[in-house]
Amino acid sequence: MRESEFIEWIRSQSQFDPDIVPVGPGDDCAVITFGTERLIVTTDQVLDGVHFRLADHGPQAAGRKGMARNLSDVAAMAAAPFGAVATVALSRGDSLDQAQAIYRGLRSAGDEFNCPVVGGDVAVWDSPLAITVTVFARPDGIEPVLRSGAEAGDAICLTGAVGGAWRTRRHLQFTPRVREARVLADQHHLHAMIDVSDGLAADLGHICTASGVGAQLRGNAVPIHPDAERQGGEDQPGLAAALGDGEDYELLFTLSADEAQSLLKRRAVDVSVTHIGVITEGAGMMLICPDGTSRSLASTGWEHQT
Amino acid sequence: MRESEFIEWIRSQSQFDPDIVPVGPGDDCAVITFGTERLIVTTDQVLDGVHFRLADHGPQAAGRKGMARNLSDVAAMAAAPFGAVATVALSRGDSLDQAQAIYRGLRSAGDEFNCPVVGGDVAVWDSPLAITVTVFARPDGIEPVLRSGAEAGDAICLTGAVGGAWRTRRHLQFTPRVREARVLADQHHLHAMIDVSDGLAADLGHICTASGVGAQLRGNAVPIHPDAERQGGEDQPGLAAALGDGEDYELLFTLSADEAQSLLKRRAVDVSVTHIGVITEGAGMMLICPDGTSRSLASTGWEHQT
Repeated sequence: MRESEFIEWIRSQSQFDPDIVPVGPGDDCAVITFGTERLIVTTDQVLDGVHFRLADHGPQAAGRKGMARNLSDVAAMAAAPFGAVATVALSRGDSLDQAQAIYRGLRSAGDEFNCPVVGGDVAVWDSPLAITVTVFARPDGIEPVLRSGAEAGDAICLTGAVGGAWRTRRHLQFTPRVREARVLADQHHLHAMIDVSDGLAADLGHICTASGVGAQLRGNAVPIHPDAERQGGEDQPGLAAALGDGEDYELLFTLSADEAQSLLKRRAVDVSVTHIGVITEGAGMMLICPDGTSRSLASTGWEHQT
Repeated sequence: MRESEFIEWIRSQSQFDPDIVPVGPGDDCAVITFGTERLIVTTDQVLDGVHFRLADHGPQAAGRKGMARNLSDVAAMAAAPFGAVATVALSRGDSLDQAQAIYRGLRSAGDEFNCPVVGGDVAVWDSPLAITVTVFARPDGIEPVLRSGAEAGDAICLTGAVGGAWRTRRHLQFTPRVREARVLADQHHLHAMIDVSDGLAADLGHICTASGVGAQLRGNAVPIHPDAERQGGEDQPGLAAALGDGEDYELLFTLSADEAQSLLKRRAVDVSVTHIGVITEGAGMMLICPDGTSRSLASTGWEHQT
């Protein structure tokens, strides 16, 4: 079973009154009307052996990643987090020290973004550690940025650099771009945004699918992280890793060419922002290679398959 | 490690501004201020081999229980649910059919209580099925009923009957008392409430600890479920099971003696409500035996220990 197949099926089962659930399954967060407010909510799990390796990374890093991944989803909507809950399934025999380290990890990421852990549940079982975090956020004056708003002609921009996050501990230690997203979305009219978790190509593919558009990515514009593996024989060393690895938790967003020009001139945020391509009409993604030729770009992002 | 030890430690680490987080960890739900509203939120997990057995009970029952347990926590605060998110960790090799059955189970409980599944996450790993659900609720005109409001002299009341929920499939098939809780709390001033998940004695203990009171339980007043095991040699067949088994998901609540009298005279809700004891000053719980003698009542509820 492919996860995407299941998620697509869930979306087909979800019919909501848009006044009550303006954004259902399929974006980085859901949005649900709540009295006079809109609640923005996301939930994500980190599993031993999949999202971290407890024996190598330790319980505190696992807890931190559990919270930070969710905060990255909140960042992808340019929302302001205000609280979280968490469940922890401990392996039988785990110590109180380990449990406390997980909680400290959750807190270390949450406290940085005014996102207190207000509740949770702990259970013990005979299987590896599993942590699920749910984060609540609100627009707080900034309209949520969805995946579905990209328009032909939009510039595609990326914060930071991508590739090789698992070759170091960057997939555990990243800082979710909550602040950057708020500043960027406050100062510019962003059409679509996502955080790079599955991989740059896969996540750009998510924006294209949700928006009903295509994309043209300029390979030599993609900022390749020093962590990225430089494979022999690549036209552009590290590009494959940058496109496919994922878990960078950078912001990938689109906005009009004019807005992009004004954004790139100023340095509104401390992190670099790079113009890496353009949204096109129709479906499909193309990669412009350094030699000027172009080829089809597949969503080669990281997806588990059972 | 005892779960209660970890939870107690977390509570000691949680200092909140009561205007922002009126109820933090340690009650059935947390309450967090959100603009002009109050968000009531709970999260809970169901794990294969602990809360269900996938091979025996199937994926749909597992999903249903994941949602229903959370709705029972919402009921314990007399809150009105309005949405949920869920994470599912599937075993590698699970089929799309199984994943869909889990989702149908979540929906079957959620849809009954106007609680749509608005988002979630699915991952695949080499370990058993784990499901975490987070439910959002609101007061909707009824002040949340906490565990901490019980007063000496209060009547202790229980909906339905308890004991033996795991001898049948009742622990999977129960209907969370969301509607009953709303009616009871709307018509009467409930001082404290909890849902019976750990066991009648354990959950009464939670109310006593949170409220700084004791309790006197009349053994022959406790409604014993037909599922409860009648052990040989018991003074009162089935009482041990009724006190200790747990997973009944009935409402246990306290209110003034006068309010209790008026509540018991009417039948405001379809389920039976039984007066089973009285809240006392000081700490400790006593059980009045059928022969009139009394003995100390331990919190013999079901608690996992690692």
